[in-house]
Amino acid sequence: MNKTRLSRVIANMEAQSLEQIVVTSTSSVYYLTGIHVEPMERMLALYIHTSGRCVLYANELFAIPPQEDLELLLHTDSDDPAALLAAGVAPGRLGIDKSWPSKFLIRVLEARPDVAPVLGSAPVDEARMIKDEAEIAAMRRASRINDQVVGQAIAALHAGASETEIADLVERLFREKGANRSSEGQLVCFGPNGADPHHGPDGTRLREGDSVVLDIFIPIGRYWCDMTRTVFFRAAGEEGRRVYETVKAANLAAEAVIGPGMPMREIDRAARRVIEEAGYGPHFTHRLGHGCGLDCHEPPDNSSACGVLTRPGMVFSVEPGIYLPGKLGVRIEDLVLVTEDGCEVLNAYPKELQVVG
Amino acid sequence: MNKTRLSRVIANMEAQSLEQIVVTSTSSVYYLTGIHVEPMERMLALYIHTSGRCVLYANELFAIPPQEDLELLLHTDSDDPAALLAAGVAPGRLGIDKSWPSKFLIRVLEARPDVAPVLGSAPVDEARMIKDEAEIAAMRRASRINDQVVGQAIAALHAGASETEIADLVERLFREKGANRSSEGQLVCFGPNGADPHHGPDGTRLREGDSVVLDIFIPIGRYWCDMTRTVFFRAAGEEGRRVYETVKAANLAAEAVIGPGMPMREIDRAARRVIEEAGYGPHFTHRLGHGCGLDCHEPPDNSSACGVLTRPGMVFSVEPGIYLPGKLGVRIEDLVLVTEDGCEVLNAYPKELQVVG
Repeated sequence: MNKTRLSRVIANMEAQSLEQIVVTSTSSVYYLTGIHVEPMERMLALYIHTSGRCVLYANELFAIPPQEDLELLLHTDSDDPAALLAAGVAPGRLGIDKSWPSKFLIRVLEARPDVAPVLGSAPVDEARMIKDEAEIAAMRRASRINDQVVGQAIAALHAGASETEIADLVERLFREKGANRSSEGQLVCFGPNGADPHHGPDGTRLREGDSVVLDIFIPIGRYWCDMTRTVFFRAAGEEGRRVYETVKAANLAAEAVIGPGMPMREIDRAARRVIEEAGYGPHFTHRLGHGCGLDCHEPPDNSSACGVLTRPGMVFSVEPGIYLPGKLGVRIEDLVLVTEDGCEVLNAYPKELQVVG
Repeated sequence: MNKTRLSRVIANMEAQSLEQIVVTSTSSVYYLTGIHVEPMERMLALYIHTSGRCVLYANELFAIPPQEDLELLLHTDSDDPAALLAAGVAPGRLGIDKSWPSKFLIRVLEARPDVAPVLGSAPVDEARMIKDEAEIAAMRRASRINDQVVGQAIAALHAGASETEIADLVERLFREKGANRSSEGQLVCFGPNGADPHHGPDGTRLREGDSVVLDIFIPIGRYWCDMTRTVFFRAAGEEGRRVYETVKAANLAAEAVIGPGMPMREIDRAARRVIEEAGYGPHFTHRLGHGCGLDCHEPPDNSSACGVLTRPGMVFSVEPGIYLPGKLGVRIEDLVLVTEDGCEVLNAYPKELQVVG
């Protein structure tokens, strides 16, 4: 167990009058225990009581070695693991991690009518929002690698290249540079495909004048990098240039206002204002960004709906975009770390308009 | 809505005295409605009442077009979608899909203390176990493509090739032949790596005498193929040959007993007996297989613990293996379809021992 992180979680539990929680997110269990298991349909659950009692319920197939400071309760495929967990919890409110499959929670409820489930992810999520030094070092390193990969991908653009060819290259480069696993889908969008912010790569071929959106992300040493750059292939039209400069200005305006103690929604506002003033407001169709760390998307939300106050150690994306259906898309995304007096942009790849190839 | 499938689900609900269920699995919603959405952290839920009333609760960002025969209740990111659903359910028992994130179920429980959640996946899971003609056609086609891809991957083996190089090739070939998406991890294992049934591809290089386990799977037209073949690179030792022939005999023995009306556990038994009699029992460390269809792993379980009786239209994997730590692994996997008088093996790639390269 990471004692420092555990004590922050327990302090959060006390602040929320939550005596006991069940932590089941793969990333949250790893954050607290250093144990990384993808349980798939099996059960992995870390029980935490404010008394400091911690029990990890795990299937023996996960092959978790004995832990010095953590009680390990193993089950097999023929056991009823949620009933085992239910037997060990105190009566009353029980905080439950947001994504725990219902099949487990229903078993707990059947076995323990004296237990009242409440949403219980916040104590760990709030601890995870503030990255410690080791986490910040990992995220800086991952973003350095992302800088290299996006540069190599841009250099590889050539007439007739397909989106999947470039997406595969990005995956391969990340793997060579130490990514733990596949990201399940780099976004590479040529020309009009870029107008769909979630377009997945297909056989579309690169043509002169296309905007090229590269939104690339992967975990390296368990921590995600996530960056978007947009370039133009061989030519950029007048509208493309205007859109690009607007998005870049929005990205820079948001990053300029970031500092401790600011409601997240103000950051979204700073970017959105620039785009609205340029007349493209209706074409910026998504939130400004998302927290990032052990999960690619994690709290805090970087949106107009989020009142969370920024604090040093938070890492989130700033990714304004403008999407013109049938024409093109431009998005420019950085990860930023909130510091004591502003922010540190973790991506160094340049944001000046580039016409390449 | 697919009326035939819906009526089977409602018949299953009636047989289980379950008046209402909430279906949330992406595959199950697609199976019944033809609508395919990956909701991520957002909510997608299909409410079914035995009266025939069906309501699809969906985030408007999913852009689902109006449905002729299905009530569509949309919500936005600022709504409380589980409370919306809670308002529409009848009091009493409510079947809940096994993987629904707890955050939604907890909201339903808070809003509706008169509702008692029970595990409610079985009515749809049991309908999905019996594939209809369209599904069988899709699965045959996917397995045909898998036959081609495994052949091309085996042909590409060369001294010094890395596991990731071959795994990337497999992904690329599947994509070229129409796979919808990445499989999140083809298994390619050289030599001693094959002794771990879940070893993920890494930089290990292929050497003479290695066993090569290729366990490759992907959805094509939404339905999964899944096949494993093991070959030897340039030479096969005596032990490797003995292990191979044992696994092949186990695979064939299991397929020989499959027919309608047999408890799944007997199929596992047929394969396991061959391996035990050859003295390798302790080295066959997993169940014989799993159901396969819209999900790669779905009911029925093909294991010693499963009493489900086989029925025509069921599709599951038969994948015995022997794992010798530090030495090698051999696994031979087919997908089989239960027919009126036996079974149809969906994979045609040969199972004779091959020394390649």
